[in-house]
Amino acid sequence: MIPSTPSRDAPLGKRRWAISAGCVPSRSNGPEPAFTSRDQFSVLNTGPTLANLRIRVLYERHSPIGTYRLTIAARRVRVFRVNDLIFPEAVRLDEPYGLLIESDCPVVVQFTRHDTRQAANAGMMAMAFSDTSGRSL
Amino acid sequence: MIPSTPSRDAPLGKRRWAISAGCVPSRSNGPEPAFTSRDQFSVLNTGPTLANLRIRVLYERHSPIGTYRLTIAARRVRVFRVNDLIFPEAVRLDEPYGLLIESDCPVVVQFTRHDTRQAANAGMMAMAFSDTSGRSL
Amino acid sequence: MIPSTPSRDAPLGKRRWAISAGCVPSRSNGPEPAFTSRDQFSVLNTGPTLANLRIRVLYERHSPIGTYRLTIAARRVRVFRVNDLIFPEAVRLDEPYGLLIESDCPVVVQFTRHDTRQAANAGMMAMAFSDTSGRSL
Amino acid sequence: MIPSTPSRDAPLGKRRWAISAGCVPSRSNGPEPAFTSRDQFSVLNTGPTLANLRIRVLYERHSPIGTYRLTIAARRVRVFRVNDLIFPEAVRLDEPYGLLIESDCPVVVQFTRHDTRQAANAGMMAMAFSDTSGRSL
Repeated sequence: MIPSTPSRDAPLGKRRWAISAGCVPSRSNGPEPAFTSRDQFSVLNTGPTLANLRIRVLYERHSPIGTYRLTIAARRVRVFRVNDLIFPEAVRLDEPYGLLIESDCPVVVQFTRHDTRQAANAGMMAMAFSDTSGRSL
Repeated sequence: MIPSTPSRDAPLGKRRWAISAGCVPSRSNGPEPAFTSRDQFSVLNTGPTLANLRIRVLYERHSPIGTYRLTIAARRVRVFRVNDLIFPEAVRLDEPYGLLIESDCPVVVQFTRHDTRQAANAGMMAMAFSDTSGRSL
Repeated sequence: MIPSTPSRDAPLGKRRWAISAGCVPSRSNGPEPAFTSRDQFSVLNTGPTLANLRIRVLYERHSPIGTYRLTIAARRVRVFRVNDLIFPEAVRLDEPYGLLIESDCPVVVQFTRHDTRQAANAGMMAMAFSDTSGRSL
Repeated sequence: MIPSTPSRDAPLGKRRWAISAGCVPSRSNGPEPAFTSRDQFSVLNTGPTLANLRIRVLYERHSPIGTYRLTIAARRVRVFRVNDLIFPEAVRLDEPYGLLIESDCPVVVQFTRHDTRQAANAGMMAMAFSDTSGRSL
């Protein structure tokens, strides 16, 4: 029913993604760096070309910051720690933030948090949000 | 293939969201308020106008309560603790609930739970649900 | 741009949902019943009529079981523990399973697991899957 | 409004899925094998025919590996541990990876991580990503 030939290598994903539950804890518990408290987002580029990302960080009581520019090579995944976003400006610790991620080709974005402020290694994971009206750049 | 110009600044998100797995634990473990057991939802407004939210809380054995009215400024994120929803009525502790969130402009809603009833800091996170037939207000 | 009047009270959700990562641990740690290891799914019915659910459980090496019949009243949420599914047959412990949930009106389904086999109260949460081709009953 | 007859037994799901936040920890804590640190993905095949999966693993700094071929019988679920993917090649430990999963019939894919590097049994769960333009094989 569905022709299978041309889509085999079509990149999977969307061009606009967002998360709203960001918060980088400033305290950690356990050996560095594996157990540092952190928010991170993982970006998968299944396509044949370099993906160029533009990211803005939105806050509760401050103006948005960015644009952060990141790239993911063709057929590669990359994990970005939010506290490694330092140019043009470091992301504030212990403050809620949201991320708006735009890419020039389809990617898949997943968000994880490792919260090690207490002895237990708590983790959370969610696919980022992308709606069907999403267009990019 | 996809024209990129007009969508660059189009707000990302949906106007109707729901979560069904709500439950605010009444007990906590750890220093207040960072480790208080809590359900919270984070709302990202990437658009250029104030987002007006209307929220109803649905229970297992009680009538729905609300409407709670909340706002998120343009290009801001806000985190709401469910136990801070007190007007017109506080949300019941230790009882399952669902949330129906309606906004007058597109937003992104993520739901998290920090359960600190035991010593370990357990966390859960999910994007709220929004379907494509979603309309608002 | 979008007419807002008729959709205000339209129920939010889908009629077919699935989860694939089910597994009910047989061991627990902590006071009963709040800390019993459990899989549970939460169903939100935002609509004006009773929702009738038909649920089948699929296994790795056994035939599917069911149909379990459950109801959710209008404008109510209900939480079902998978180990409370006992008629026509109890769900096997410590065996992977998937759930196929069909409803005669739109609902929202979220899945959570509390794993208390070790001292820490681990939790996981995800929206169940529902695709746009989903039809029901 | 929606005809209900033909869809009752239509398989639920999509043919292309991806996760981007993969990472198999090499260390564990607790009795084997239940508490081994692991990434796993659960695939539900609600349809009447065998599902043939083709899986590729994408890395940060290495070429993609695969194709891994897996099957799920009709009306069955299967759980795959990522560190059991050993033919044609084992998946690297402690390195971020993404998964691209293609199936010849609709399936539902959920991703979970059990991280037992510290004493607490941390868990994370997410539905894998599948977009509406997804075609397969």
